[in-house]
Amino acid sequence: MIKVGIYGATGYTGVELARILSRHSKATIGFAASETYAGQRLSDALPCPFDMPLVKTEDAPLDTVDVVFSCLPHGPSAELCHHALAMGKRVIDLSADFRLRDPAVYARAYQHEHPHPDLLAQAVYGLPEVYRSLIPDADLVANPGCYPTSVILGALPVLELGALEGNLIIADSKSSVSGAGRKPTLTTHFVEVNENLAPYNIGHAHRHVPEMEQELSSVVRSQESEDRSQESEIRIAVMFTPHLLPISRGMLSALYLRLTPQGAQADWHAIYTRRFDGEPFVRVLPKGQIATIAHANHTNNAVISVGPVVGMEQDSPTLLVVSCIDNLLKGASGQAVQNMNLMFGFDEREGLGY
Amino acid sequence: MIKVGIYGATGYTGVELARILSRHSKATIGFAASETYAGQRLSDALPCPFDMPLVKTEDAPLDTVDVVFSCLPHGPSAELCHHALAMGKRVIDLSADFRLRDPAVYARAYQHEHPHPDLLAQAVYGLPEVYRSLIPDADLVANPGCYPTSVILGALPVLELGALEGNLIIADSKSSVSGAGRKPTLTTHFVEVNENLAPYNIGHAHRHVPEMEQELSSVVRSQESEDRSQESEIRIAVMFTPHLLPISRGMLSALYLRLTPQGAQADWHAIYTRRFDGEPFVRVLPKGQIATIAHANHTNNAVISVGPVVGMEQDSPTLLVVSCIDNLLKGASGQAVQNMNLMFGFDEREGLGY
Amino acid sequence: MIKVGIYGATGYTGVELARILSRHSKATIGFAASETYAGQRLSDALPCPFDMPLVKTEDAPLDTVDVVFSCLPHGPSAELCHHALAMGKRVIDLSADFRLRDPAVYARAYQHEHPHPDLLAQAVYGLPEVYRSLIPDADLVANPGCYPTSVILGALPVLELGALEGNLIIADSKSSVSGAGRKPTLTTHFVEVNENLAPYNIGHAHRHVPEMEQELSSVVRSQESEDRSQESEIRIAVMFTPHLLPISRGMLSALYLRLTPQGAQADWHAIYTRRFDGEPFVRVLPKGQIATIAHANHTNNAVISVGPVVGMEQDSPTLLVVSCIDNLLKGASGQAVQNMNLMFGFDEREGLGY
Amino acid sequence: MIKVGIYGATGYTGVELARILSRHSKATIGFAASETYAGQRLSDALPCPFDMPLVKTEDAPLDTVDVVFSCLPHGPSAELCHHALAMGKRVIDLSADFRLRDPAVYARAYQHEHPHPDLLAQAVYGLPEVYRSLIPDADLVANPGCYPTSVILGALPVLELGALEGNLIIADSKSSVSGAGRKPTLTTHFVEVNENLAPYNIGHAHRHVPEMEQELSSVVRSQESEDRSQESEIRIAVMFTPHLLPISRGMLSALYLRLTPQGAQADWHAIYTRRFDGEPFVRVLPKGQIATIAHANHTNNAVISVGPVVGMEQDSPTLLVVSCIDNLLKGASGQAVQNMNLMFGFDEREGLGY
Repeated sequence: MIKVGIYGATGYTGVELARILSRHSKATIGFAASETYAGQRLSDALPCPFDMPLVKTEDAPLDTVDVVFSCLPHGPSAELCHHALAMGKRVIDLSADFRLRDPAVYARAYQHEHPHPDLLAQAVYGLPEVYRSLIPDADLVANPGCYPTSVILGALPVLELGALEGNLIIADSKSSVSGAGRKPTLTTHFVEVNENLAPYNIGHAHRHVPEMEQELSSVVRSQESEDRSQESEIRIAVMFTPHLLPISRGMLSALYLRLTPQGAQADWHAIYTRRFDGEPFVRVLPKGQIATIAHANHTNNAVISVGPVVGMEQDSPTLLVVSCIDNLLKGASGQAVQNMNLMFGFDEREGLGY
Repeated sequence: MIKVGIYGATGYTGVELARILSRHSKATIGFAASETYAGQRLSDALPCPFDMPLVKTEDAPLDTVDVVFSCLPHGPSAELCHHALAMGKRVIDLSADFRLRDPAVYARAYQHEHPHPDLLAQAVYGLPEVYRSLIPDADLVANPGCYPTSVILGALPVLELGALEGNLIIADSKSSVSGAGRKPTLTTHFVEVNENLAPYNIGHAHRHVPEMEQELSSVVRSQESEDRSQESEIRIAVMFTPHLLPISRGMLSALYLRLTPQGAQADWHAIYTRRFDGEPFVRVLPKGQIATIAHANHTNNAVISVGPVVGMEQDSPTLLVVSCIDNLLKGASGQAVQNMNLMFGFDEREGLGY
Repeated sequence: MIKVGIYGATGYTGVELARILSRHSKATIGFAASETYAGQRLSDALPCPFDMPLVKTEDAPLDTVDVVFSCLPHGPSAELCHHALAMGKRVIDLSADFRLRDPAVYARAYQHEHPHPDLLAQAVYGLPEVYRSLIPDADLVANPGCYPTSVILGALPVLELGALEGNLIIADSKSSVSGAGRKPTLTTHFVEVNENLAPYNIGHAHRHVPEMEQELSSVVRSQESEDRSQESEIRIAVMFTPHLLPISRGMLSALYLRLTPQGAQADWHAIYTRRFDGEPFVRVLPKGQIATIAHANHTNNAVISVGPVVGMEQDSPTLLVVSCIDNLLKGASGQAVQNMNLMFGFDEREGLGY
Repeated sequence: MIKVGIYGATGYTGVELARILSRHSKATIGFAASETYAGQRLSDALPCPFDMPLVKTEDAPLDTVDVVFSCLPHGPSAELCHHALAMGKRVIDLSADFRLRDPAVYARAYQHEHPHPDLLAQAVYGLPEVYRSLIPDADLVANPGCYPTSVILGALPVLELGALEGNLIIADSKSSVSGAGRKPTLTTHFVEVNENLAPYNIGHAHRHVPEMEQELSSVVRSQESEDRSQESEIRIAVMFTPHLLPISRGMLSALYLRLTPQGAQADWHAIYTRRFDGEPFVRVLPKGQIATIAHANHTNNAVISVGPVVGMEQDSPTLLVVSCIDNLLKGASGQAVQNMNLMFGFDEREGLGY
């Protein structure tokens, strides 16, 4: 039985972590820290069926736990992770601080210098479907963003087979409001969201774009050569259109993937099914079913439907892939526990039933 | 003051028509017909602030009105329109029956033979932004579908300038539930829709695809030549992904338009602004604002935001256009009254204020 | 044609006022003031179909208008109203500042001293169904709160006939989120509201309770005598349970009214129908129909259903009345324009069509 | 490990049962029967993360299971229960067929004769907080309705102490749409429900009223004497106002309980806390917190907040109790599994974690 610490326990990802871990058979919560609600209990912060005391971040008994989850915002999260690693703790960071390998890219996306660029080299990107072999030995796991999780998993098989025509992927994504965090803003005010659908940060402007492009480009490079010298070169561009949906949880990405002439001949449903065969948390739907947010919500599954291919002779045939996740589970806290399970040699599924 | 008749008055488009017409200064409602609620009043059928008696379709005093609106389903609607035209009445058909010029295409899309192919030649497609000059003299106006209205208006300027690379347009559209009609089905059950986003009829399967392709191809042909001999040849394909949103009204289409090298140099925001300058019901948002469903709801406006263009050197640059309408107004009953206003020489805006 | 000024134009009630007034045939908007968005345009503040420039409160050309609407918060609103009255302008205050006649009651409810108790005597409570005769001559109209509007109108006929057993009215009210204003708070965060129903300020704690009790007690007193000497004595208590609903607009109050033995014999549906006969904005539904929020939304109507009476022999029979309004129209901006129409001798309905 | 059969597996309660039981450590699903989807799989019927084949009701291998759950509609459910009991199986009926002890009351409420009145005497009303001692030996458990569960638990302590003044309880209840079942109707159409709140079957008209009155009267009688001779006499009347909320799951009942003079002096928060102390699935909130639907959703808890008492000297003081449940869990399938756990001697909590 390991002990875990949660920082940022009263945000949506923090509470979801607490819920999963409170029924995990191999882990127990050592502490839950919150700046806003320190000294109170979790049930004072929000209406939840389980409860625990909340401590200040600096008062958390870090020495008593085996691993920490940081649900702090980017910036402060890197500081905390640095501190915990220095104390010899293993760390799963749910912020964006260790996802981008290049600190210059980080600085552009997040508008401040990276607090601890020295730690970037040891961070493992915690997407088990790509990096499963590296996670067990990692001390610092950068838990992927929600949009990147849905987009990367949905595009992976096409890129791995080199079947993308050109280098532009269109991702038309729609996210629930919990993805925007619990801090009140006009953007998340009920009346502004309800009965609306609002695209935002369109084109190339969202912070998750560099994360997607880094990982998708890495897939392409690793297919083409073993030369890792040009590690941060971007080979795949993502035209990304995020929309804010009037729902509380869940995310759907519609991916438009132009195919090479050879790629257009392939049986993509079969290829996806084979690629994710054995993956505990990727579910490729049978032909004829289309992925919806309801398929994924309240589960740790990425649910993917493949096809059809559309296009006329003169033009590139284009494959539609629909990829859905629960942004608080596979898109955040569920994937974080999946990573913890891999790090500590537990069954990857432990605690992650529906 | 003209008198109008409404058939199918207790569906969502019928009630919206009744609402608009009940405050129109140049038209008065002669009768409202409903099969389900005949003999009752409108307020028995749904909670609305205005009221009127409902008659059986066959009992409607057709001879007393100047124009009829048909909100009947396709098939029965064509029969009714035929009958009304034969009685010398002008007709605005909100069904799909007279939108497609080729009865073979109609038969494939709607799974039955066209009831009155002889009337197709005289029908005018009621999209004023394209066919304004033809509408005043029309006796039969085919009111456009909601999805086609949002997609055609959003793609029009690029096609008119011949700037589309290849011939495939990607339209990722999201519709409210009122677009599915008022008949109860599992698809429109609250619990199935709520907290969900569900793509459906993806690829090329939705009945509105032939309508979009017909009109967009017609734009391309009319740019290229005056040769109308190949009238039904499809020149533009639409990869169409409709989604069902958990909202009551409104629709958003995100259009991905690959640009020719020359097209990539253009100032598309300026071009769209100029193209729709003077249009009473198309609003191109200023640069920096992105169209949302809230911009369009409860108005007869198509609200469009233009840009950005995304793409790397080797690949085709792609323009994002977001096009929003209220599916019950500009996507149905509002546009129908706009057409009526044009047919009878009224101010095009009459009755259509917010 | 009169000119009006709007203060607090970018909140939900301010925008609704701007919408109504922009299509009013007898009034034109002289200015719209906003602290947050001064120097910008209304369309920068929110996605609305009409537009106008926004000025700072202190820069607003008060001398050029005939009447001002204050949508400022209580406290600052009283200051503004005082200033406008001193400049000789007529004032409609949508805040709570002039609704309570007793400044001590105000101080308890709003937790600060009344800024201008001297003005209280001249303020008229702008509920036309009760005070219609006083409004035309008023220079200062206190526009009623949304909850009080729905509760007072729903209970009025029972109190006017002296048929209430005891002195406690139970009002179980459910409000949309726009009633909580546009300022972002955790309470109005989409995720906290959605898929939830949350009672708040229950019992006797809501600020609208003294307003209801003042007006309902006044009804009772005026039935019993002409003695106005004990003007602020509370004769009717309201047990008030407000709930926050996951909808954007609308409000429903279920009223439980214990009846005297004589009252239990009455035909309440007939009494309510007669009481509100001729009222332009109160709609008593026919027997068998139950008021819902959809009946009232997007209209200035209070929609009321009456009955049934329930109770066993030994116990007091209790009448259920359901009273619905659109909180932004009859509960705020619509009623404010109704008051303006009365003040300036216009048709009471002007501008308030659906 | 016991084996269970589920009839009516593709409705909302059936699927919820399947979800709970698929992770239950002491029970396994022997079969799931569905009329509509027989021959298909559960994932064909709705988007769920677990799956199983669906058989026809008459083909279900009843002899292979230890207990059956009926999620069939009333009427057919009684037939099925009769058949299963005759086969020697234990039965948990989620329909209304065995909740009412008096077949005449049943016939009035459900508009048809009871199919098996002979079985009524052996049925135990499956509300563990009242009948826990009888459930382990029962072969036929009538699982309570959702509204009655929330109302009875919320009113119980006041009735047990004989502190109700008069005999009328007001229950203002608000239910999610899943409580109306999965069959498509106009009432459950998304557009009719969304942005609305609709009272229905008000006064005394809802079928759950006799069930509440039976159980609440039984509490009163058992306090007053041991005389069971007048078993079906109604001693408590419920004035019941159900509303349909635009949410998918959850239910809230606001109870207004007039108190005797002696009752008005009691510390009701302490009394409720003591009454439900040790109950695994009733949670009385600390003073100052108010129960909301979010407290109960996705748990098997009834969450109750107590107080305040409101009233003036001359009138009866009235206690507000707010009682929330997830209608699919404590209001249906969760409570059914709780009953199964009691019937088979398992830990009452088994399978019912959040």
